[in-house]
Amino acid sequence: MDRSKDDAADRSTTDPDVGADFLQLRSAEAPLGGLAGWLTARLRSAIAEGRLPVGSRLPPSRQLAAELRVSRGVVTEAYRRLAEDGHVAGRGRGGTVVLAAPEAAAGGGGEQHADRARPFTAFPPGPEVFDTLRAAPSRVDLSPGVPDLSAFPRAAWLRAERAVLAGLAAGGFGYGDPRGAYELRRAVAAWLARFRGVAADPDEVVIVAGTAQALTLLARVLAAHGVREVAVEDPGSLGVRQHLRHVLPATPPVPVDAEGIRVDALRATGARAVLLTPAHQFPTGVVLSGPRRRQLMAWAEEGGLVIEDDYDAEHRYDRPPVAALRAALPGRVCYAGSVSKVLAPALRLGWVLAPAPYHDALVAEKRFTDLGNAVLAQLVLARLMESGVLEAQLRLLRRRHRSRRDAMTAAIRRYLPGAVVHGAAAGLHLTVTFAEDSVSDLALSAASLDRGVKVQPLSWHRQLPGGPGLVLGYAANSPDVLASAVAEVGAARSELLSAGRSAPSTG
Amino acid sequence: MDRSKDDAADRSTTDPDVGADFLQLRSAEAPLGGLAGWLTARLRSAIAEGRLPVGSRLPPSRQLAAELRVSRGVVTEAYRRLAEDGHVAGRGRGGTVVLAAPEAAAGGGGEQHADRARPFTAFPPGPEVFDTLRAAPSRVDLSPGVPDLSAFPRAAWLRAERAVLAGLAAGGFGYGDPRGAYELRRAVAAWLARFRGVAADPDEVVIVAGTAQALTLLARVLAAHGVREVAVEDPGSLGVRQHLRHVLPATPPVPVDAEGIRVDALRATGARAVLLTPAHQFPTGVVLSGPRRRQLMAWAEEGGLVIEDDYDAEHRYDRPPVAALRAALPGRVCYAGSVSKVLAPALRLGWVLAPAPYHDALVAEKRFTDLGNAVLAQLVLARLMESGVLEAQLRLLRRRHRSRRDAMTAAIRRYLPGAVVHGAAAGLHLTVTFAEDSVSDLALSAASLDRGVKVQPLSWHRQLPGGPGLVLGYAANSPDVLASAVAEVGAARSELLSAGRSAPSTG
Repeated sequence: MDRSKDDAADRSTTDPDVGADFLQLRSAEAPLGGLAGWLTARLRSAIAEGRLPVGSRLPPSRQLAAELRVSRGVVTEAYRRLAEDGHVAGRGRGGTVVLAAPEAAAGGGGEQHADRARPFTAFPPGPEVFDTLRAAPSRVDLSPGVPDLSAFPRAAWLRAERAVLAGLAAGGFGYGDPRGAYELRRAVAAWLARFRGVAADPDEVVIVAGTAQALTLLARVLAAHGVREVAVEDPGSLGVRQHLRHVLPATPPVPVDAEGIRVDALRATGARAVLLTPAHQFPTGVVLSGPRRRQLMAWAEEGGLVIEDDYDAEHRYDRPPVAALRAALPGRVCYAGSVSKVLAPALRLGWVLAPAPYHDALVAEKRFTDLGNAVLAQLVLARLMESGVLEAQLRLLRRRHRSRRDAMTAAIRRYLPGAVVHGAAAGLHLTVTFAEDSVSDLALSAASLDRGVKVQPLSWHRQLPGGPGLVLGYAANSPDVLASAVAEVGAARSELLSAGRSAPSTG
Repeated sequence: MDRSKDDAADRSTTDPDVGADFLQLRSAEAPLGGLAGWLTARLRSAIAEGRLPVGSRLPPSRQLAAELRVSRGVVTEAYRRLAEDGHVAGRGRGGTVVLAAPEAAAGGGGEQHADRARPFTAFPPGPEVFDTLRAAPSRVDLSPGVPDLSAFPRAAWLRAERAVLAGLAAGGFGYGDPRGAYELRRAVAAWLARFRGVAADPDEVVIVAGTAQALTLLARVLAAHGVREVAVEDPGSLGVRQHLRHVLPATPPVPVDAEGIRVDALRATGARAVLLTPAHQFPTGVVLSGPRRRQLMAWAEEGGLVIEDDYDAEHRYDRPPVAALRAALPGRVCYAGSVSKVLAPALRLGWVLAPAPYHDALVAEKRFTDLGNAVLAQLVLARLMESGVLEAQLRLLRRRHRSRRDAMTAAIRRYLPGAVVHGAAAGLHLTVTFAEDSVSDLALSAASLDRGVKVQPLSWHRQLPGGPGLVLGYAANSPDVLASAVAEVGAARSELLSAGRSAPSTG
């Protein structure tokens, strides 16, 4: 996660001796008895989260004991336990030094996550893999799906929140409509009409905690309607597939080619429902072609159901985005979108529409999930949408992301010769594939992370066999940072290639 | 919902002729074709939501057509359809008058909810019953579980949000830890230690969207661990039972007496898990006695699992709250709490702790549900907790709620003679029962709603047979309003009692 990274960077420039304050330790919080266990757990968390980076020195035990107002024996015992774990080592007068991040910040509550710090060893990746990757220390995060977060309109958000707080009746702080605040449903309906060609009544819109929640709710609704599998694009988003698979027994893969999903192959799976990213296929960036749209609509009219994940469709650089599938076939398309790519994923705000037969079940699932999204942020977003702030933000991001895309494309040409770039016309990420497949993308991702750069291997997003590649987000970093990060990836690749050449052939 | 009520009250004092602006109609939002259908749906919503109250006049068709820039035929056609539905009637020169609220604001998206406006007809009540009650027009809402919302610390919230926005690194707007922001987990751990006697590491705390979400997540985790039923208190919260039943096949009822849940009866159910409100039983207000605590702990140590719903424990008027069960038996108690009763339900912010064997599964459920709560509100709440604002708010509410409780108790003595009051020592609500049971509490609740006062019948919260009663929230209304509302309930009861006496006996 970027915050821990920033913290780690800040700290590494300061004195390596750090005290209780920095560790956010307060012995008053400790359980009665078991002070040493508590301190061990907290130190372990601090190391895992990068607040106490590898190579830094722990505070002298006498000093920490005084700061925490505990006996020195508590601290030496905690250090001893950490040393037993292999996380720290005594270096005589050099003090106690952090050797390795622990596997998990499990504290008193959980089991150990074996691969917390090693996201690219397990394959296929488990559901915690995105958390593992986020928690891994790095200098640059090229994970896809995140916009330029430094552009978040903080002042406009605060102004809108002030207006919301000033105008909201007391009853507005009570339990609300599980579908979401009317004001936001209305604003979303207008946004969808304007930018996505989708005609929707506010009462059809259900406000949710991001596309991720939309998918889980829809999967539960479909499961209750007897649907046991939802076909997915291949390659296609690992995260989306994991969300569906948490609820449903199967997600049969359907190949994507230069025109988008192969509808003949979709038919062959026998699945009654499919998850699609038609406007900008994840991760290849392909736009679903006209002929494929028509085939898909024929399939849907025969009883197929489409879940349209419209995750980044507003971000198109060369021409206006294509209309959503939902616009053409509202009776057979569930539609999900969010502000994660226009404002920030941390807002956890999105929307979902379902055809009428599923609407009430969808609202019920939302009700039982959380009784509806938090109200203040909904009303703030409604204001930003209706006052034009969100549209201005989208225009700003498009310009900025476009120049970042260009910087990344140039860096790829320079540092990753032979790589083929896909999906540059829209979105927040590129996918690159490599002609030679002598280097696995898992190894390349791991080697890049060792050099401080987070990337996602294309193989994460595949169920079917396919060549190696990387999915590279460009939106969240400046052109300079992108260039240096891609240079590191290129260096990692060169190293792996030459290691492969020099290694004895095992035939 | 209070907002619609306030709107209706505001509007009824203004000119009964209302225009397009008030109706929030913008014909630019209308789908191409079908303008009359669109306008009909929007007017129906406006009537259902109380923006166009019963008795008010619709705008003259010529005027509305001009405001919306549609042909007059579109408006007269919409009015004709509403008249067909029975929602409005032409009154000659008196214009077109609203006769009755429609069943649902279903718009284009959903089916009709047959009992949207009649929450007390179906028994047992369905999952939509709280939405139905919320949507019903009323003057005073005595639904339990809502604090004094007018006391929400708007200025402090906004100040804290400004500080959060000023201090948050860009990466903080990205995807976060599904367990919640570290800052809030730390603040919650300190809060629990201080107010509930619970020692918890921040890494054990999972931030969730209110207690409702905590229950659904826990139910899913338990279901995955083979638990098929969670016993519940009887009487006990209908909402809680509905949440559990959405996931699990059964919630066997266990009687509550003057000492709390009957542990012998719990044993007799054979259930491996139980949902409890030990600090202030909902709805009876009983505190779990010492002997019962010990019996319960013995049951838990033999393998039973407790879900502790600590929904309003901080609100105790006579003495400090009893410690949470979790404090005594962390290995066998899942613990859920929220700020819904201290700040506002609309924040959808709470926390849940689970014993170690369930922790990772709980985090996984949270991840798949929404990838974690929205970050900004978490950081704001953390500041309010750590700066003492939340504690001051709790003290303010306790004082204010106490005087409201006294006002309601006095009003009950005056207007509901013979009623027995339960649970006055703590919380945000009272339960009253009636010695004579000639009047069903469903009929009394319906008659009270006809007089503009929302109350919940005790029978909603029962699975086992029991006498009639009402659950009356006092925290959200001023003493004067409470007195007049209880007077209406008393009048409704007198009317029903005399109708019962004058009706010919059918026995």
